[in-house]
Amino acid sequence: MSQKTISSIQNAYIKQLFLLKEKSRERKKTGLFLIEGQRELALAIKGNFEIDTLLYYPELVSEAQLKEFTFIGGNVIEISKEVFQKLAHRSTTEGVIAVAKSKSHEIDTLQLEHKNPLILIAEAPEKPGNIGALLRTADAANVDAVIIANPKSDLYNPNIIRSSVGCVFTTQIVMGSTSEIIDFLNDNSINTYCAALQASVEYQTQDYTKPTAIVVGTEADGLTDEWLKASTQNIIIPMQGEIDSMNVSVAAGILIFEAKRQRNFK
Amino acid sequence: MSQKTISSIQNAYIKQLFLLKEKSRERKKTGLFLIEGQRELALAIKGNFEIDTLLYYPELVSEAQLKEFTFIGGNVIEISKEVFQKLAHRSTTEGVIAVAKSKSHEIDTLQLEHKNPLILIAEAPEKPGNIGALLRTADAANVDAVIIANPKSDLYNPNIIRSSVGCVFTTQIVMGSTSEIIDFLNDNSINTYCAALQASVEYQTQDYTKPTAIVVGTEADGLTDEWLKASTQNIIIPMQGEIDSMNVSVAAGILIFEAKRQRNFK
Repeated sequence: MSQKTISSIQNAYIKQLFLLKEKSRERKKTGLFLIEGQRELALAIKGNFEIDTLLYYPELVSEAQLKEFTFIGGNVIEISKEVFQKLAHRSTTEGVIAVAKSKSHEIDTLQLEHKNPLILIAEAPEKPGNIGALLRTADAANVDAVIIANPKSDLYNPNIIRSSVGCVFTTQIVMGSTSEIIDFLNDNSINTYCAALQASVEYQTQDYTKPTAIVVGTEADGLTDEWLKASTQNIIIPMQGEIDSMNVSVAAGILIFEAKRQRNFK
Repeated sequence: MSQKTISSIQNAYIKQLFLLKEKSRERKKTGLFLIEGQRELALAIKGNFEIDTLLYYPELVSEAQLKEFTFIGGNVIEISKEVFQKLAHRSTTEGVIAVAKSKSHEIDTLQLEHKNPLILIAEAPEKPGNIGALLRTADAANVDAVIIANPKSDLYNPNIIRSSVGCVFTTQIVMGSTSEIIDFLNDNSINTYCAALQASVEYQTQDYTKPTAIVVGTEADGLTDEWLKASTQNIIIPMQGEIDSMNVSVAAGILIFEAKRQRNFK
């Protein structure tokens, strides 16, 4: 199947791929990123990501498994154990690493297919683990889009891909400044509910059956005033414990699934 | 204030504390563990944990801050920067580390103060980050207890304390084997709702206003058959995306807050 084998980590192409794994700047410059793992790769293909090159370490992937990925075209390269370990982010047993082309996440690429969308917005999320959990929730709820306001991380960071279990590929994601996004929501008459501690009503009292965006901020600072002033209503999850804080992805899950419940999961 | 100063990481007591930080076995043997950070320590004191010794690095904590912690008695020791860095788990700016006595978490210590309890149960949770997020949710919902079935981790692991932001101290937590816990639930006529994919009804169709335990398993394997067979009803969060999985702490948050919503947050 493969026309080519690379066994040395000194190979110039492998060195370039190592930079793709490690450096956000290199990913931005080239428009390429690495995908590791069979599940993640399958989801990326399903999400119409273009695969430039597929690398595989034959001890960890069968020919049958490999065929599921090679039908899409692109280069296929067999790699040695040493090269695989250099490029792999985790001690996986899956044996595939793909070089894929990133998509545009400009706000003007956003397409809302339903008349009554449900959108999850996160302002300046930082921890890859939290972003990954948010994207898994977004996938499970089949939201129409995730919007990241004032992004602090590169979406193709290997830790985000991993912690999202590939959901970074299955959900429509756009990014932009808070003011661009607020303009978009206003232009499209989407009700905006901002999770906040102050001047808020309890979340379960509100009606999310109309076009709805649910907006969460960071755990440390919450949402900026720009969001809190632009919202249709600020909402709070009643907290009855000793501390006034909740994991941001848990809070987003509670709010999004209350909206889903009100919509009868349709 | 302090009677004693330790400045060398070669000091025998500091070496013992380092073992407490690193080794679950040492924590079990001595019944002691380390608490780092002012917020965490304040919550432990509020949760009636007994503080054996307070260590502080004066550059990072003011005398006024320190007074908040020293009223409770116990030894107070000033430590050098080097010792602080050796014992501190994270690059904190808070300057306090306490040696505390662990509590018993045997199931027979469980006390339910309300007639209509809401309990969160997790079977064999492994990742400290997930356990921490579960405990934050439990605190926010002010559940009557968290029960960990077939525990795989030591509750006083520094990563659990940190990721729970101290909520490991604010919630009643007991641990036991799955069969012990099922016996407890049956003896106390508590309805048991197990999150599961098979033979399940959608979670939002059930009534959680009676005495209720919500049970979640691991992300990899879900709940064991022992739980699924013993449950009052197995429930599912409808998932409409590409993957059939959700972060376990997000799933627990959705289920617990649906119960809270039905109970009008009382």
